[in-house]
Parts: sequence; structure tokens; C-alpha cells
Amino acid sequence: MAHRAKAGKKNRGPERSPHRQYRLKGRLWVDGPDGTFIGYGRVVLMERIIELGSITKAAKQMGMSYRHAWRLVDSMNRQAPKPFVITSAGGRNGGGTLVTEHGEKAIKMFWKTYGALERFLEKEGAKFDYTDRKA
Amino acid sequence: MAHRAKAGKKNRGPERSPHRQYRLKGRLWVDGPDGTFIGYGRVVLMERIIELGSITKAAKQMGMSYRHAWRLVDSMNRQAPKPFVITSAGGRNGGGTLVTEHGEKAIKMFWKTYGALERFLEKEGAKFDYTDRKA
Repeated sequence: MAHRAKAGKKNRGPERSPHRQYRLKGRLWVDGPDGTFIGYGRVVLMERIIELGSITKAAKQMGMSYRHAWRLVDSMNRQAPKPFVITSAGGRNGGGTLVTEHGEKAIKMFWKTYGALERFLEKEGAKFDYTDRKA
Repeated sequence: MAHRAKAGKKNRGPERSPHRQYRLKGRLWVDGPDGTFIGYGRVVLMERIIELGSITKAAKQMGMSYRHAWRLVDSMNRQAPKPFVITSAGGRNGGGTLVTEHGEKAIKMFWKTYGALERFLEKEGAKFDYTDRKA
């Protein structure tokens, strides 16, 4: 049924453009002394913390348990020379969670490198002709 | 014990070179119509099949179940325009498993792109200074 797509409906039948259906993908992260230090999920988590001011809310928005989010934050803080995320309990405004300038710098650096990876994948993917067209 | 390495044994104490302990890492794969098509594990599996002439032996050497190895091979064969791995049951030599020239080309292309990624990571990793050294 879904096997035989209507001609022209989506220009990605094998006859038309055999290579459109393949895509070079990649992932990157920074390893630290305890394994993963900075990665896609950790960076997005920090961005949500900046936005929402709370690990609980950030975790919720990402569909992640608080426990998991806390462990990611703790893993970054333990591995970074200076903490990326600071939580103050209590205080005048009832406490809150902040991403430090070090965390913000890590976020920026990560996206910059991520962008470079995207360009790399596009360039290399175009060369990645693993099939023998003559065969 | 292992905590306090002999001075000079490995130059990667935090005091000496704060950035040696961080490393930019990456992974790449090719997605096809059904998800992952070619990736590190699949390429190594094909290399073991070339070496050992058997999915069973290749799987065993990689500490992988036969079932899992077979599914990886099947996934590649279904997504490739021409099969990467051919198994002939029986025959004069009791059958055997071969990697086709298409599979061999995929292996070559993968390692070439993988090498380019390694160079990319090295270059970008050197730039990846997420900490504020002045702080």
C-alpha cells in the first residue's frame, strides 16, 4: 500500500534522485574527566534554565525527570573549573537557579561548534557517494 | 591510589594543562529511508564478515548476538540500492557470507568521512575554549 507512492507526490522515489533519501548525520559532545561534560541536551537544558529560572520547570518542559536534569547539571558543575549553574535556596526572592557566565560561554561555544559540524556534514554528505552508479 | 598519578607520568594533571582533560568528540552515520543505514558498528561488522566469511563468527568476535548482527546486515541490504552483504546457503563450499563491492565501497567512503570528522574535531576542539581563563 504505502509501498507504491503516487508518482510525483514526493520527489524522492529511488528512480528520480537516488541519493536524496540518504543523509549524513552527526553528533558532538565534549568529554570531561567523568565522561560526557557538555552535549546537546545539557546545552538545551541550560537554555531552559535561563528562560525559566528553575531546574524543575526546565526539566518539565523537556519531558525529563527532575532527578535526571539535576544529574546533568551536577555533572557539568563537577567537571567545569567553575560552576555553570547555581541554585540559591531561599533568600529575598525565594531562591532560584541561574546559569553563570561560564555556563553561557559554554552554550555559545557549543552552538558555534555545532554550526561548524552542520556545515561539515553538508559538505561531506555531498561527497558521500557510496554506491557505484555504474553498477 | 590510582588517584595520585606519579608526577610527569602523564602530563594531564588539572594543574598543568586545564584543557587537556576536555575533549571534543563526535559520531557520524548515514540515515536512510528506515533510520540508520551506515554507521560505525555496521562498517566494522562488514569488515569482520570480510575477514571471517560468516555473520555468526563476525557477531561473536564483536560480542554481539547473531540476531542483532543479522538485523544490521538486513537493514543495510534493504536500504541500499544493491545489497552490501550476500549469504549463500550450501553450495560446494558449504555456503558463506560475502561483502559485495557496494558494501566495500560503503566501508571505504565511511572511513574517509570518519577521518575527515576526526580532523574536524581536532581543529574545532582546539578552538573550544568554553572557560573564561581570566575568571
